[in-house]
Amino acid sequence: MPESTPAFEFDQGIALTPHPDEPGRHDGELGDGWQIGGGVNGGLLLAFAAHALAREAGPAHPHPLTVSGTYVSASRPGPATVRTEILRRGRSLTTGSAILSQGGQERLRVTASFTDLAALDEEVATTALPPELPAPEQCVGVEHAPRELLAQAALLERLDLRLDPATIGWALGQPSKQGRIQGWFRLADKRPADALSLLLTADALPPVTFDLGRPGWAPTIELTVHVRALPADGWLRVSHATRNVAGGYFEEDCEVWDENGRLVAQSRQLAMAPR
Amino acid sequence: MPESTPAFEFDQGIALTPHPDEPGRHDGELGDGWQIGGGVNGGLLLAFAAHALAREAGPAHPHPLTVSGTYVSASRPGPATVRTEILRRGRSLTTGSAILSQGGQERLRVTASFTDLAALDEEVATTALPPELPAPEQCVGVEHAPRELLAQAALLERLDLRLDPATIGWALGQPSKQGRIQGWFRLADKRPADALSLLLTADALPPVTFDLGRPGWAPTIELTVHVRALPADGWLRVSHATRNVAGGYFEEDCEVWDENGRLVAQSRQLAMAPR
Repeated sequence: MPESTPAFEFDQGIALTPHPDEPGRHDGELGDGWQIGGGVNGGLLLAFAAHALAREAGPAHPHPLTVSGTYVSASRPGPATVRTEILRRGRSLTTGSAILSQGGQERLRVTASFTDLAALDEEVATTALPPELPAPEQCVGVEHAPRELLAQAALLERLDLRLDPATIGWALGQPSKQGRIQGWFRLADKRPADALSLLLTADALPPVTFDLGRPGWAPTIELTVHVRALPADGWLRVSHATRNVAGGYFEEDCEVWDENGRLVAQSRQLAMAPR
Repeated sequence: MPESTPAFEFDQGIALTPHPDEPGRHDGELGDGWQIGGGVNGGLLLAFAAHALAREAGPAHPHPLTVSGTYVSASRPGPATVRTEILRRGRSLTTGSAILSQGGQERLRVTASFTDLAALDEEVATTALPPELPAPEQCVGVEHAPRELLAQAALLERLDLRLDPATIGWALGQPSKQGRIQGWFRLADKRPADALSLLLTADALPPVTFDLGRPGWAPTIELTVHVRALPADGWLRVSHATRNVAGGYFEEDCEVWDENGRLVAQSRQLAMAPR
């Protein structure tokens, strides 16, 4: 039966209804509000599929630990179906595969492992350092982004994104050429971050190639996110970097840090480099 | 029908026979010689599954560009079956999924995209730098590795691995604690590197946690390899690094550089941290 409408935009964006007759199938709707560059944001799609798998994983392992998605065809706003298959139920992990499709066309293939992030070993021996950012009020909101970008980015209205002025020269035609974009991230309606919303966060900033003076869109081929801890509520620090633009492709590494200084997510994607 | 035995160990290790009656199925044998820490090396398994998908992708897209593997259960030497499914045949990429199983038990789930690496755009705008290594003859062969390691590592006999003395203090009970292991890699029988063998190279060094003073094995949960260029023949420089050991897991980032100074592969895995 249809479920009640969630209060927050992100929860509406990944809302699913279990299919009454087909075990493992969940149906939902990809909303207009998550469009970017003519398609639906890849992070939202990853969260949508992972949401279906999380339900199948069940309460013992409710959180994605690692989620790998391969983008098979471009998603469009409208109905979408996720068919899930649980591959293994272990003591510490539940692993599954999911196919997100629209009108019978496969959009995204996901394999993911789920755990209980609240029950992990408490050791934290992180040597990575969080990005150094000016305070959110010293950063640049997307209202300053180029009009042609905003026109194609309904997604940005769902986000409170404050980019570091040092990495947003591209918006003024002066890219730093460092291959780095960083800033503060929060959902616009203050929906608290959780393991699923981090999958969106990992793919929510503009393509890091903007900072290399390549303003075009960069279609994602593959995106893997490791969710390393449950995020604290509040602002998230997000950095995107690339070190290998070559052969028409580039990798984009993303880190997400919470207000407690915990590295809560790491991701890497391979994308097509804009000309 | 069975195919002739390849000349090189790696090609024997990933040898497959197409199943006569089941389209997309390929059968092979996981050899004793690829064992490590009681299981079969995860990189060899990834190459084994990717080999089957490469055959299905066909001559237009013969090389893996991105390969994501999720390790479902521990593989053992013996017969293994790969069942493949092609998800999309595009102009620049062919994408497929594969299940590697033994005796009906799923071992590894792979999703991968294939292309023609020889036909990529020639631009190389890499800002990453190759690891600085002493010459191979100044590095440390695995013959110096701890006996208890070698006893569980038939894999190492297939490899000519020369580790940087600066990152092998762990072998003498003095780990650098930098979370970094690097060295030179070549297949012991001089089999030239190619796109498939790079999948092995990305998971062939000892776990980077050895350098943190944790000598135990580190089971891989998920491993994604991006093959960014066809490697030149000769020595490969390989670096493994981790920056986030936390909650009982760690990420291991690997880079593989060829003798022409090209970054030919980048990989990241999530693994369980040894106690």
